[in-house]
Amino acid sequence: MTSSPPPPRTRGPRPAGTDTRAAIMTAARTEFADHGFDGTSMRAVARRAGVDPALVRHYFGAKADLFAAVSGLPGRPGVLIGALFEGGTDGLGRRLVALFFSVWDPPEGRQRMRALIAAASSSEHTGAGLAEFIASEVAGEIAPRLRGDDALLRAELIGMHIVGVAMGRYVLRLEPLASADEDAVARWLAPNLQRLVDGAP
Amino acid sequence: MTSSPPPPRTRGPRPAGTDTRAAIMTAARTEFADHGFDGTSMRAVARRAGVDPALVRHYFGAKADLFAAVSGLPGRPGVLIGALFEGGTDGLGRRLVALFFSVWDPPEGRQRMRALIAAASSSEHTGAGLAEFIASEVAGEIAPRLRGDDALLRAELIGMHIVGVAMGRYVLRLEPLASADEDAVARWLAPNLQRLVDGAP
Repeated sequence: MTSSPPPPRTRGPRPAGTDTRAAIMTAARTEFADHGFDGTSMRAVARRAGVDPALVRHYFGAKADLFAAVSGLPGRPGVLIGALFEGGTDGLGRRLVALFFSVWDPPEGRQRMRALIAAASSSEHTGAGLAEFIASEVAGEIAPRLRGDDALLRAELIGMHIVGVAMGRYVLRLEPLASADEDAVARWLAPNLQRLVDGAP
Repeated sequence: MTSSPPPPRTRGPRPAGTDTRAAIMTAARTEFADHGFDGTSMRAVARRAGVDPALVRHYFGAKADLFAAVSGLPGRPGVLIGALFEGGTDGLGRRLVALFFSVWDPPEGRQRMRALIAAASSSEHTGAGLAEFIASEVAGEIAPRLRGDDALLRAELIGMHIVGVAMGRYVLRLEPLASADEDAVARWLAPNLQRLVDGAP
């Protein structure tokens, strides 16, 4: 998420195409790095890229989708997790573990997760944008689907249980956690996630 | 945990004192950074510091104590957690949360935890030594105290639940998790830790 600013563009909108998409991503990386997630507007990204704001939305959708794209995420975590609630909350803990494995366990997913944890941990600056994005996803997409007390706190703990396991499996590579198959991890992790979903202490 | 090697000492043991302790710590940092936790011997640290190995043990105890000291840890996590088992496993989840808060929640603890997570995440090299140390603590001090299936995996998940919460509270600083008091966090975290202690899926 570090990059130098693109050359200033002052001659109005540029034609659509691969270059435009790349220019928007470059501009977005710079804006997010400089102003965080909350402090970046789609309008500012468009201005920096020298395109119309409508074009940014056309290519990337909402600001959160743009952030996910430039962060190398396979999608918005809040939306991916939120979709699991469509199937009801029974067995949701187990489905969360399945989603975790499908997204992060392939080799490129592991590498992406390592990069994300490093970005969140090593730089106050980059970490701030990522933290704001995660907070926005959790508050906007996950917590509203939880019933009972402390929905926002529980939603954060669901996310942090998953990040903790990712840290042990992909960063610290502790054995047997690093090599355990999905069912072995789910046996212990899924009931703990389910408790947080259900809100039964 | 990065430092340049001290000047070579070839004139035999040096006198005990503050300088000696500092020289041992400098030597240990270099050895751990170069060879990880598993690959470093007390003898190699002593040789690099120009002191007798007995002096290293006199000042620091075992290799794990030395690693904890140079990593800015308030003690060996395995030993601190292991001591909680002396009180039996009833309520252990809650006592783990209390230990977490007492060690990491003061301002200097938060800063240490941020530094540890950054070290584990940002450098393959430093991370490797830390990961080996954590694996050694978990396997040697915590897992042997757990009854039932998958003791080592459960011990790792206990550690990673705690690291995940530390990541959300001190690194990402998600609200309300970052400002929640001990009881509020314990309400949801302690039962999940207890389940892993008890081994009842």
